[in-house]
Amino acid sequence: MALANRSLVTIDDLSNGEIEALFSLADEMSEKMNEQSGLCSGKVMASLFFEPSTRTRLSFETAMHRLGGSVITASDVGITSLAKGESIADMAKVVGSYVDIIVIRHPWEGAAKVVTDYAGVPVINAGDGGHQHPTQTLCDLYTIKKEKQTIKGLKIALWGDLKYGRTIHSLIFALAKFGANIIFCPTPGLEVPEHVLEKLTTEYGGEIERYETPDTVVKEVLLPLDAIYMTPSSPHQLAMMPNVNIKVELKAGVDALYVTRPQKERFTPAEEGQELKKRFPVVDKKLLKSKAFRKTLVMHPLPRVDELAVELDADPRSTYFKQAARGVPVRMALIALLLGVKEVVVSGEDDSFIRRIDYPPYRRDFGVKCPNPRCVSIQETETKYLKPEFKIVNREPLTLRCIYCEHGFEPKYVASSDWHEGRTATKKYHSAESHWAKKIRPENLIIFDSADTAEAHSFKPSHYVRVHPSGKKKMRKK
Amino acid sequence: MALANRSLVTIDDLSNGEIEALFSLADEMSEKMNEQSGLCSGKVMASLFFEPSTRTRLSFETAMHRLGGSVITASDVGITSLAKGESIADMAKVVGSYVDIIVIRHPWEGAAKVVTDYAGVPVINAGDGGHQHPTQTLCDLYTIKKEKQTIKGLKIALWGDLKYGRTIHSLIFALAKFGANIIFCPTPGLEVPEHVLEKLTTEYGGEIERYETPDTVVKEVLLPLDAIYMTPSSPHQLAMMPNVNIKVELKAGVDALYVTRPQKERFTPAEEGQELKKRFPVVDKKLLKSKAFRKTLVMHPLPRVDELAVELDADPRSTYFKQAARGVPVRMALIALLLGVKEVVVSGEDDSFIRRIDYPPYRRDFGVKCPNPRCVSIQETETKYLKPEFKIVNREPLTLRCIYCEHGFEPKYVASSDWHEGRTATKKYHSAESHWAKKIRPENLIIFDSADTAEAHSFKPSHYVRVHPSGKKKMRKK
Amino acid sequence: MALANRSLVTIDDLSNGEIEALFSLADEMSEKMNEQSGLCSGKVMASLFFEPSTRTRLSFETAMHRLGGSVITASDVGITSLAKGESIADMAKVVGSYVDIIVIRHPWEGAAKVVTDYAGVPVINAGDGGHQHPTQTLCDLYTIKKEKQTIKGLKIALWGDLKYGRTIHSLIFALAKFGANIIFCPTPGLEVPEHVLEKLTTEYGGEIERYETPDTVVKEVLLPLDAIYMTPSSPHQLAMMPNVNIKVELKAGVDALYVTRPQKERFTPAEEGQELKKRFPVVDKKLLKSKAFRKTLVMHPLPRVDELAVELDADPRSTYFKQAARGVPVRMALIALLLGVKEVVVSGEDDSFIRRIDYPPYRRDFGVKCPNPRCVSIQETETKYLKPEFKIVNREPLTLRCIYCEHGFEPKYVASSDWHEGRTATKKYHSAESHWAKKIRPENLIIFDSADTAEAHSFKPSHYVRVHPSGKKKMRKK
Repeated sequence: MALANRSLVTIDDLSNGEIEALFSLADEMSEKMNEQSGLCSGKVMASLFFEPSTRTRLSFETAMHRLGGSVITASDVGITSLAKGESIADMAKVVGSYVDIIVIRHPWEGAAKVVTDYAGVPVINAGDGGHQHPTQTLCDLYTIKKEKQTIKGLKIALWGDLKYGRTIHSLIFALAKFGANIIFCPTPGLEVPEHVLEKLTTEYGGEIERYETPDTVVKEVLLPLDAIYMTPSSPHQLAMMPNVNIKVELKAGVDALYVTRPQKERFTPAEEGQELKKRFPVVDKKLLKSKAFRKTLVMHPLPRVDELAVELDADPRSTYFKQAARGVPVRMALIALLLGVKEVVVSGEDDSFIRRIDYPPYRRDFGVKCPNPRCVSIQETETKYLKPEFKIVNREPLTLRCIYCEHGFEPKYVASSDWHEGRTATKKYHSAESHWAKKIRPENLIIFDSADTAEAHSFKPSHYVRVHPSGKKKMRKK
Repeated sequence: MALANRSLVTIDDLSNGEIEALFSLADEMSEKMNEQSGLCSGKVMASLFFEPSTRTRLSFETAMHRLGGSVITASDVGITSLAKGESIADMAKVVGSYVDIIVIRHPWEGAAKVVTDYAGVPVINAGDGGHQHPTQTLCDLYTIKKEKQTIKGLKIALWGDLKYGRTIHSLIFALAKFGANIIFCPTPGLEVPEHVLEKLTTEYGGEIERYETPDTVVKEVLLPLDAIYMTPSSPHQLAMMPNVNIKVELKAGVDALYVTRPQKERFTPAEEGQELKKRFPVVDKKLLKSKAFRKTLVMHPLPRVDELAVELDADPRSTYFKQAARGVPVRMALIALLLGVKEVVVSGEDDSFIRRIDYPPYRRDFGVKCPNPRCVSIQETETKYLKPEFKIVNREPLTLRCIYCEHGFEPKYVASSDWHEGRTATKKYHSAESHWAKKIRPENLIIFDSADTAEAHSFKPSHYVRVHPSGKKKMRKK
Repeated sequence: MALANRSLVTIDDLSNGEIEALFSLADEMSEKMNEQSGLCSGKVMASLFFEPSTRTRLSFETAMHRLGGSVITASDVGITSLAKGESIADMAKVVGSYVDIIVIRHPWEGAAKVVTDYAGVPVINAGDGGHQHPTQTLCDLYTIKKEKQTIKGLKIALWGDLKYGRTIHSLIFALAKFGANIIFCPTPGLEVPEHVLEKLTTEYGGEIERYETPDTVVKEVLLPLDAIYMTPSSPHQLAMMPNVNIKVELKAGVDALYVTRPQKERFTPAEEGQELKKRFPVVDKKLLKSKAFRKTLVMHPLPRVDELAVELDADPRSTYFKQAARGVPVRMALIALLLGVKEVVVSGEDDSFIRRIDYPPYRRDFGVKCPNPRCVSIQETETKYLKPEFKIVNREPLTLRCIYCEHGFEPKYVASSDWHEGRTATKKYHSAESHWAKKIRPENLIIFDSADTAEAHSFKPSHYVRVHPSGKKKMRKK
């Protein structure tokens, strides 16, 4: 399967076999770093950073230079100053007509997909808001693979800000895809979003165990965890373990502890007010003194602030600077493959733990738009040409997932196109939770985000709207 | 005629034959884009952008990289932060001692000329305030030439902000130079400046037809035009046409419609307050539905905001993304020629429609300075070494044109150096409009911008000052 | 002595022989500028500018490109925006793992040393706050050498802001090292710091003559000098000269006049309030009309503002634009040597005028920290891993010099570790000026910056604290 001329927007754009092949090429790059400068001679990469991120940018640019290519850079560009009101699509078309490959970082979630859709050249997502950062994930996986030889069956603990770290979201799916078990150790208030957990169980086939009282668990099992994802590949005793066994399993050893920095720049004003670090331990030698951490890789995507003690830098378990250094060969391999200057043989065996589900699309123009304020699809400059588009990922409750930012949400009201076409008298809308609503076939579904929108489109409430007379939909509690 | 070691400050720096030769080289670059990387190997280009313009900068930098050269970049540099009070001349000398060629964008009009005067290496003007942007014009002309095979005799409509778009001013003169007819369709309030129209008739030999009531004309002739420039090469019926024939001529087909964005960043506070787009049509499929637009190229220098509908992107008449893409080969050709790594044969035939007029210079130090607040010659850091210098482009009324920013203005008072030298009793100044004033020979002219300045230089009012007793010069109305 | 893999933090990192060898290589680079592009092919340089300095950055980047290498750039990066609270050490480790060599400019004094300590690749200090700017000094020395064939015995006048110009501090030590005499002509209020003068006499073996009433001296000796440094190599009459002979000596000719710009960005609020230029002459033709200036090189590190008249640009004595241009070959030579792609033969003869003194170190953790507010060692992000460290450069009065920013200061209180270990009753602290204090051996010294700190560490005042009952240490007046 050739990678040439493809793009990398989310980690799911690469199969497990492709990732493994890319890692082999990264090994080759790493061993002969100074012999690659003929590969991309004459090629030009655009490095477009609409958010400050010197580290990632320099890593990509170094990679291109090591391959002998050239780089044009737009860094720290304010959204408005670059564009003077220009759309991302226009920018992508123009820059795509100049260069051979585009690397894009943008604060809007889904922006990298839009660039990919319009640029006409390979595009690499270097981070789109809180959505994904797939090359960081490749570096993370590559590091685990190098240090532990495999990813399958490992116990990987994720620590800190599991809510806003885009790095974390990409990584979670990638670990699941490769059959790792995941231990969630969030800073209180920065738990992993529900939609991520839901996608894990739906699309990656594993199970989530949740722990209501993390504090008790902390003391017993070494880590302040609040949930564990068990991959379907786990050894029987882990997959089947009742609560009482976690302790045993974890004490047998944590393979990696992936620490993250609070992404304060994405905090809500309420979150900013809280002093998170006061409530949550710093990762230091003391925390890692238990036997369970004897062979634990200590990882961090960097930059760190205070969450990871400097005293660990000299500790043999620390791999975070190696992780950063490996960004160059991994990105060299990726660029070389997407530009088609290198070919890899992708193993025929598909050992992916992902279940590819063909969710029905939802594209109707009845006013539903993505509720994520950072989604590219709802920005003023983009709505001129982007139509909202979703996947219907669940019917109970009815859940749409935006194809741009991948946020999921549960709209309140529905109707059926089958029922009303040509017969306005039957234009009725229903509560999305009513059993009636669930019978509508996906291709006939009309979805409204509010009763007002439904009525603005000349629909009248059916008696299935009154299922919840308070007007408030009952929240699904977990 | 060799182009090596020359600079491009205004489009007039290149003859028609040179431009045609450059276009042939651009064709060659375009066809073999990936085979040019040996041409500028070892050469270094400085890309100095004192105003944000990612698009133009990236186009130039891509061009240099495609030629195998290197680039040093200073982008989005505040005027003060780069210079700490340094003059443009000092900066030009220093950077000119580092590199082989300089590309400069600067907010001050005439800045590129100053860089050229001091750098000692070839300089390309990438936009100096509202003055000129000659490489954009080259891309525009190249696109018209590629699509229509010729420029001579075409009917080109210019649409939108014809006041502040430096792109437009460069383009107008270039079109005239190549013998095109120009249809002016300004957003009301953003008409093309008088001095541009005046230069057209004086130096390019064509005629201007003005239309006082654009609204009526709009309805009749499809476009909200307010003036037409008829090139001397026009077919008889166009050159001679009375008003009634415009309709016929335009209905026969507009060759290109060049749309521009309101340059809001240059608006006066009064202009900012107006909602321009509400008063002026958007260019969309509906506007272009008439038969006259059947083969019209729709052009735009990009970025666009709302003035050009997205629905036209897929329309075969749209050439704006091609225009942008062609910036790279055109700039490659230009850089290669100025660096002398490529030679072209320039056709001996001079088919220029420009009349080269040797206007008398005016350099005396009697207090006249350019009234354009954005002119480089009056900025505090530059007055230490720059002396104001003008061309006397007209005597009736007396009109000076700044050699830096090319703004024209009409000073009020004059004297003669012939009359007073050694005889202070005869040091008299006159109204510039008096018939006496007109008799002073250019080499004897002394010009004052106010009566106060004249008197500060010990001149006394002659009775020719009292021609307009109110003290206000009668404005020439057009 | 190989220069490969070494770093350049201060000018003292290179011996005189190494500097001479580097200059020979710079000559070679300069003569065959376009034949060096194979030297650094495949190498990558990081250009990290945490303060705006387009000129220096472009000079370094041009140098690397001329050598055929690649550059990744982070310019005008706010300290916080790059780092999100990250330490300089972390940044250095990460970038050091990407590239082959790092050029760093940073507002914190000593920052370049920290980068060098952690990067693992050669580092070049491109200016760290007011501390040093050694490559500027190399360009300055190279220019003097080219124009005057030697540096030894020359009379070099330093003019203007001798307080804040880091360029000046590097240059003073370099001139002393090469045996030049230095004439200090400071703008009143911007005199050279005491610690610089002190280091000159202590470590470079020359003598300082001070003049209390510069105004009188100005009139008599042409220049508004306030001190002269006489190198030990000076001809007898200069080294021995009583005041009356200065006039004679200077009238015989000043070899170079090095003019500097007031570094207003480093002024204290009080200094900002003063209009310095009103009180101090501008360097212009009139000032240089005396015979003593007939062969004087007029130098300036640029950018200039008003301190050096434009009329001198065309004067044959002016060398400031040559100085700037020479930055490229000098930096090419330096980069090539540190990367080990070029070797030079360093003359065995050591003609250095520097006395290398092995000052005893002071590293104890008793609360003494560097009092310089711009020192890297006291910044919040750096104190997590940097321990204060000093050299004991004097005992009378006790003077510590910070190993990062090289600022010197005189702490007030001391104790001896020999006296109290295990015997808390004898834990006494003394005034640093007491004769008792002076007897403590360097390896036993404990130093406190205040009595409170001493007492917080359970030390009691000895009767040697009461030497100065007012509690104020007597200031050493000069």
